[in-house]
Amino acid sequence: MKPSARAKLLDAALGTIREKGYSATSVDDLCARAGVTKGAFFHHFKSKDALAVAAADHWSETTAGLFASAAYHDPADPLDRILAYVDFRKSLIDGEIAEFTCLVGTMVQEAYGASDDIRGACWRSIAGHAETLEADIAAAIEKYNVGGITPESLALYTQASIQGAFILAKAKNDPGVAIDMIGHLKRYIELLFKPEGREARRP
Amino acid sequence: MKPSARAKLLDAALGTIREKGYSATSVDDLCARAGVTKGAFFHHFKSKDALAVAAADHWSETTAGLFASAAYHDPADPLDRILAYVDFRKSLIDGEIAEFTCLVGTMVQEAYGASDDIRGACWRSIAGHAETLEADIAAAIEKYNVGGITPESLALYTQASIQGAFILAKAKNDPGVAIDMIGHLKRYIELLFKPEGREARRP
Repeated sequence: MKPSARAKLLDAALGTIREKGYSATSVDDLCARAGVTKGAFFHHFKSKDALAVAAADHWSETTAGLFASAAYHDPADPLDRILAYVDFRKSLIDGEIAEFTCLVGTMVQEAYGASDDIRGACWRSIAGHAETLEADIAAAIEKYNVGGITPESLALYTQASIQGAFILAKAKNDPGVAIDMIGHLKRYIELLFKPEGREARRP
Repeated sequence: MKPSARAKLLDAALGTIREKGYSATSVDDLCARAGVTKGAFFHHFKSKDALAVAAADHWSETTAGLFASAAYHDPADPLDRILAYVDFRKSLIDGEIAEFTCLVGTMVQEAYGASDDIRGACWRSIAGHAETLEADIAAAIEKYNVGGITPESLALYTQASIQGAFILAKAKNDPGVAIDMIGHLKRYIELLFKPEGREARRP
């Protein structure tokens, strides 16, 4: 089945916005990259902002499939699953910066004030992905008897760390610095659940 | 002394770019906010990109003064100084999102690929600020006998966490989530240097 003009435009948005940001991306850029006419663009999207909201949702769906089928869900221990998730995020940092950085983190950075629809779509994407980690974090909190944090807050912090790692990779023009930063996130989680390598509480 | 047109344009850049990003900020926007003519703009800056580089350097200088004179340098213990720095960063998260978020983190997110001069200026700003933390981190690593991390890497991670916290605040439209995220950074540093509240190594 040939991809529809709508699908081609959404894929073009994922590529171009991660390369040069949202404001610098024009409707003409998107049409040229997608190989569709401007008429087709406005048939599918009433404005560039409407495309941005759809692109954020498309990003959530695309990445959800990647994460749902990844091997980090396999370990029996919930802490091992969380750490395997962090390793998986690290393994995705490869190739061109625009290919491994985050569409919604990039868009919201500049568009948060101009469009509440775009801002909300970016938040849904970030918070929705974070939510997929909450069950494992809750199980690890229980198993390792850790106080003072909530699954929601730690899940969001994994995303904050990764978003910040992307900013440093862009600024230094070096994916290596992002990998190094995510190493700190992993160490934090290890220390939080197993300071000094303490044993799990046995029920 | 009246601020010069150049100083007014740089201050306008700090405000407007944090509100709506770099690409969405036009030379006209900056002139209007600064109350100067377009002729004055191009007398001082040969292009919008040249203004961006100067704004990043101006940002570094402005914030350097704020940090150099802050009270977090006062504690005798180096770990206490690092934790006080984190608390200070938390205390700055107040008011409008554009007022407490980071000029260079915002600019580099979109402009990293388009202008190596802007990217480099943003990196100088982030890495230069991180460097001001390295001596305290090195002293804490020595005092608390911590292995496996370098002062440079941990200093950069403080900035990655804070940049990521800003993205979440923008996406959720809630400064509170940034404060919560920086709480995790503080907890990481505490656990790193004092897991289970271990005593400092006495020389």
